[in-house]
Amino acid sequence: MSVTVVGSVALDTVETPWGRNDEGLGGAATYFSLAASHYAPVHLVGVVGKDFPQAHIDLILGRDINLDGLETAEGRTFRWSGRYHEDVNERDTLDTQLNVFEQFQPKLTTAAQEGEYLFLANIHPALQLQVLEQAKASFIGLDTMNLWIDTTLDELKQVLRRVDVLIINDLEAKDLTGEKSLVKAARGISAMGPSNVVIKKGEHGCMLFKGEQVFVTPAFPVENVVDPTGAGDSFAGGFMGFIARKDATDFETLRHAVVYGTVTASYTCEAFGPDPLTRISITDIENRYQQFRKLTTF
Amino acid sequence: MSVTVVGSVALDTVETPWGRNDEGLGGAATYFSLAASHYAPVHLVGVVGKDFPQAHIDLILGRDINLDGLETAEGRTFRWSGRYHEDVNERDTLDTQLNVFEQFQPKLTTAAQEGEYLFLANIHPALQLQVLEQAKASFIGLDTMNLWIDTTLDELKQVLRRVDVLIINDLEAKDLTGEKSLVKAARGISAMGPSNVVIKKGEHGCMLFKGEQVFVTPAFPVENVVDPTGAGDSFAGGFMGFIARKDATDFETLRHAVVYGTVTASYTCEAFGPDPLTRISITDIENRYQQFRKLTTF
Repeated sequence: MSVTVVGSVALDTVETPWGRNDEGLGGAATYFSLAASHYAPVHLVGVVGKDFPQAHIDLILGRDINLDGLETAEGRTFRWSGRYHEDVNERDTLDTQLNVFEQFQPKLTTAAQEGEYLFLANIHPALQLQVLEQAKASFIGLDTMNLWIDTTLDELKQVLRRVDVLIINDLEAKDLTGEKSLVKAARGISAMGPSNVVIKKGEHGCMLFKGEQVFVTPAFPVENVVDPTGAGDSFAGGFMGFIARKDATDFETLRHAVVYGTVTASYTCEAFGPDPLTRISITDIENRYQQFRKLTTF
Repeated sequence: MSVTVVGSVALDTVETPWGRNDEGLGGAATYFSLAASHYAPVHLVGVVGKDFPQAHIDLILGRDINLDGLETAEGRTFRWSGRYHEDVNERDTLDTQLNVFEQFQPKLTTAAQEGEYLFLANIHPALQLQVLEQAKASFIGLDTMNLWIDTTLDELKQVLRRVDVLIINDLEAKDLTGEKSLVKAARGISAMGPSNVVIKKGEHGCMLFKGEQVFVTPAFPVENVVDPTGAGDSFAGGFMGFIARKDATDFETLRHAVVYGTVTASYTCEAFGPDPLTRISITDIENRYQQFRKLTTF
């Protein structure tokens, strides 16, 4: 089965204590697609400007990612710029230029509409609702961020009622629910709609909740984190890609999807930008999966 | 096999967003002993003042904990006072009164000296060295804190050269080594002496390192954290207690010890003070161990 993702394709400028990457390929939908493409065919829906380098398009097309839904609009590509601290769990956003994203109206191709699996990456909830109007997916994943929790909560809640899994980071889960305990936050989120909740804790791993069923896992221990940008989106890509590959959404499948998401995301942190995701094969992923199992089994 | 612990027995005043506990039973050696006593007989070596309530003594003696090494000195018992934030990973120490601890010179009873397993809880490294002069243990665990890393690093390094496992929290591991990555920090610590390193990450679980062997595990997800005071010491107690019970220190045993430590510590967070540790049985622990396995296995 294929998976459709709607979200940002961007040019990122990232500074970390270990280096700097200027106007590199970025965006949630980019990381998601490159990660998911190891498991299933992907339809990417988004927008870039006329300035978007052909080399980036070629890199994405080098994977099993359909770009018929990637619009090229007049103007400049969305740009994001951030700086990570020595503790890479903390970062400052230095600049965000929406550019072509400001006028973006997502339009799903027929193939994207008819896909069984859909992921709404972190964009304005109003746009996510537009996508839901077009899509026929039977299993829908969602990401969001503090900005939307703070400024467009009503629209976000409309989206939440219509999705099957929210994949969100720990601080956002607490903000969205007002709960301090992640177990309670997950329960609060489920009450808003999604029957499955994944709470990401960065280098500390993640938690999956489905009703009273819980699965917790650490992150894969990466020795040299070079740039964590896109790790969360890569996790979501591995998670949704695995589900699409299995074409199943039972709890056992979701547990494994969490681990594949974890393993896939670990590669993203090892270099600037999404390049590691284009260099690895499913065999590399399977090997690291087995290594992770060895690291965590007792 | 028995396990000997040398460390503080205290009266703690703790404030959390959910309540307050005035002059409750506390101290690293207390939490350690109550946790370890579920697995093996314990010898507790420490000091209290004349004001230490008999009820606390009785509570400790209600478990398989030998108090022949607990001195009662003239003066007041060691007191600690702290306040937790809504994010219980953060706390402020409001007051520390060393009292009888200021003049403490640890003296091990013959039984404590001859025990195979020894844990040096967080006290001044000079006192830890005094203990090492008396003990004949073949497997020694150590805890420490930022204060000693910052002020008595040379003495701490002397201790480190003579222990088998350092059980330390993540920020302290980074401070001790100057490394930002926990994987590298563990390697740096091993180079200082201990062939085994356990890095505790609070609610995010912990990591065990022995040479190139690694084991990572999340924490048990506690829904209502009431008071995390002593959770780290309870972890160490469960860890060392399990090792003493098995009388083995191979990596497989240490992995299981980490999980038993994790499970034991989860109880400590569920109420103020160490009471939960006195109310549970090894059957409760085994049940939660199986529950934890179910929560983490994939």
